[in-house]
Amino acid sequence: MTVQANKRVNGQRLWDSLMQMAKHGETPKGGVCRLALTDVDKAGRDLFVAWCEQAGLSITIDKIGNIFARRPGKNNDLAPVIMGSHLDSQPTGGKFDGVYGVLAGLEVIRSLNDMNYQTEAPVEVAVWTNEEGSRFAPAMVASGVFAGVFDLDYGLSRADLDGKTMGEELARIGYAGTADVGKRKVGAYFEAHIEQGPILEAENKTVGVVTDAQGQRWYEITFTGQEAHAGPTPMPRRKDALLGAARVVAEVNRIGLKYQPYACATVGLMQIHPNSRNVIPGRVFFTVDFRHPDDAILAAMDAELREATAKIAAEIGLENDFTQIWYYAPIKFDETCVAAVRKGVEDLGYSHRDMVAGAGHDACYLSQVAPTSMVFIPCIDGISHNEIEMATPEWVEAGCNVLLQAVVAKANTITVKATD
Amino acid sequence: MTVQANKRVNGQRLWDSLMQMAKHGETPKGGVCRLALTDVDKAGRDLFVAWCEQAGLSITIDKIGNIFARRPGKNNDLAPVIMGSHLDSQPTGGKFDGVYGVLAGLEVIRSLNDMNYQTEAPVEVAVWTNEEGSRFAPAMVASGVFAGVFDLDYGLSRADLDGKTMGEELARIGYAGTADVGKRKVGAYFEAHIEQGPILEAENKTVGVVTDAQGQRWYEITFTGQEAHAGPTPMPRRKDALLGAARVVAEVNRIGLKYQPYACATVGLMQIHPNSRNVIPGRVFFTVDFRHPDDAILAAMDAELREATAKIAAEIGLENDFTQIWYYAPIKFDETCVAAVRKGVEDLGYSHRDMVAGAGHDACYLSQVAPTSMVFIPCIDGISHNEIEMATPEWVEAGCNVLLQAVVAKANTITVKATD
Repeated sequence: MTVQANKRVNGQRLWDSLMQMAKHGETPKGGVCRLALTDVDKAGRDLFVAWCEQAGLSITIDKIGNIFARRPGKNNDLAPVIMGSHLDSQPTGGKFDGVYGVLAGLEVIRSLNDMNYQTEAPVEVAVWTNEEGSRFAPAMVASGVFAGVFDLDYGLSRADLDGKTMGEELARIGYAGTADVGKRKVGAYFEAHIEQGPILEAENKTVGVVTDAQGQRWYEITFTGQEAHAGPTPMPRRKDALLGAARVVAEVNRIGLKYQPYACATVGLMQIHPNSRNVIPGRVFFTVDFRHPDDAILAAMDAELREATAKIAAEIGLENDFTQIWYYAPIKFDETCVAAVRKGVEDLGYSHRDMVAGAGHDACYLSQVAPTSMVFIPCIDGISHNEIEMATPEWVEAGCNVLLQAVVAKANTITVKATD
Repeated sequence: MTVQANKRVNGQRLWDSLMQMAKHGETPKGGVCRLALTDVDKAGRDLFVAWCEQAGLSITIDKIGNIFARRPGKNNDLAPVIMGSHLDSQPTGGKFDGVYGVLAGLEVIRSLNDMNYQTEAPVEVAVWTNEEGSRFAPAMVASGVFAGVFDLDYGLSRADLDGKTMGEELARIGYAGTADVGKRKVGAYFEAHIEQGPILEAENKTVGVVTDAQGQRWYEITFTGQEAHAGPTPMPRRKDALLGAARVVAEVNRIGLKYQPYACATVGLMQIHPNSRNVIPGRVFFTVDFRHPDDAILAAMDAELREATAKIAAEIGLENDFTQIWYYAPIKFDETCVAAVRKGVEDLGYSHRDMVAGAGHDACYLSQVAPTSMVFIPCIDGISHNEIEMATPEWVEAGCNVLLQAVVAKANTITVKATD
């Protein structure tokens, strides 16, 4: 009961839809600025809903603005297979991150309509609110509420820099729905996404079969030394907080290189006080982002960082305020979902490889409440969160064809009831 | 023809004057915020001028707001001996940096009045406008105009962050004088100042005989790599601009330590782009401040920095935009002025050591047009440009006694005419 591999989605329609959606928030540099729950995001949502209604889907909006567009199955007592991602973007985002997963889902359903093919279980496309976290922190907040990781009240009370909350903004743009968030069975969840990294393109592979998502540990470190004049303060008497932070940057890099091929280790943010050319920095705040798919190795990286930081601080005479602010366990995606994706790729004959997702995705939270996996396609030069983010029409179509195969296979074999 | 060493200044009066002046711009933390040409700076200038008039001095203000308070000598054809420094402070400055040199000069004159002692050459106290450079860059701009380093128009056109120029602000607060800037002979220049470093206090010395000022080379470096997502971007594929900058910080420190005891090497300012926790920094701008009293060593430090920067950039794959933005040759202060200070210290019996000035001072520019030297006193923990900047009444008095000796000795032996 699969869709035959010679049945394909309409790649041109999918590409056109991506380009039309990209007009909402388009930037002069060719990217997209569609921050969550702005007027531009409302326009994007409205377009998506209109398309879904044209495709005969019924729309449900939950209390945190997640949109579900449903195509009935033969047996509507079965839990639905959901495809989805997000429509919001980074402030200088691109045309694919998130929106590809949403519109690939819609294209799967449009193609099923074209084929007049009915799945056993219902199939839905989901739009998750505020995945990026650019306007309202944290990221992935609405899929997190759906999965029970956050309370609904917490999600609705997230505020932007002007103090406007997600709850207020949902009401303002007309996307404060009435459906309960979560609290229903999901048969399986699939998310198509650009890789946001360079591996597929570098290895000339068209599709990534995502087996795992990396665990993450995020840290905030403040080194405090002694602010002093860069001229009359002899080198041996200094307590230079930036020198300490610089040594930690080097250690973070060393730790990342030590645990290859998977480890990622990054200092992305640093604030220097007072940040004046001729003053020895007295205080430096910086962050560390560690990622690895193996929790034991992530713990080893953590231990090495703590040891290195303490040693460097002691050598220079710095106070060391060290906090792990976030821990996110590695995720192994559901074997049956991964197998469905892999079979789809193999049946279609695309070049492929198994992959570990490096970034956070709504799929990471969904995996806590439903069998889940992801389909990756390449992006040019691995560049994402950037207005020049780009994928080719061929990759876009290939990932959607794989999604079609995996979703249909799963929707035809699910036995779990919506009421289980 | 010297003032006998048993003649001392009135230390209590000097201390009281410092504390009274510190009320103009006093901060809750016990420091001073008296930015150049603000209302608070005007109030400080007015107080100084009032004190000078009470001491019988004649006031001249030049076109860039430098104030000269003159006590006639026996022979007023001789070029004057000038003492001075600045009244403006850092935004979070202290009670001594700059103002000590001005009020020590005034106290020398008040004491000469008390002694009814007349010098051969006239003696003046100078207040130089905008030494700190906190409100209007660059620093030491008005003494620089006096010394012919900068044009008057350049000086007057310096603007603060609100676009207000020094010329406008001088006119507003009533300190746009009519006297030409510079263009007159200075017999000698002496500047008393807190050390702004920890050496004197650490070695338990009361007075620093300043023989040299360090040369300086300032650099601006921009490393450009590739901004990318911290999760899906493998370590070996990264071009992390912050990693490059961090390695340069370590190299700058290594170079500074290599050329001890005098070298100072500092990265004080760094700006990371985009400065986001989960984005590999694509661009980092940072500065380097090198100082050494020996020009040849300063050149060697320069060469090592250029080599290290190029090597690091090449290893990581970064573009390296490297500019030396300022070169300031080392200064050897005038032998006769240094000798006058040293004889004063020895006659008075204070513990002392020769010193190299690490910071920039108005004396550095004055040394280009007049025989010049400086007198340093300790400051607690070497802390300056800070609200907790502090010196003891004993140090303050000792430095002023030395200034008295040196100035009188010089004023009594000058032969150069004011019209030379």
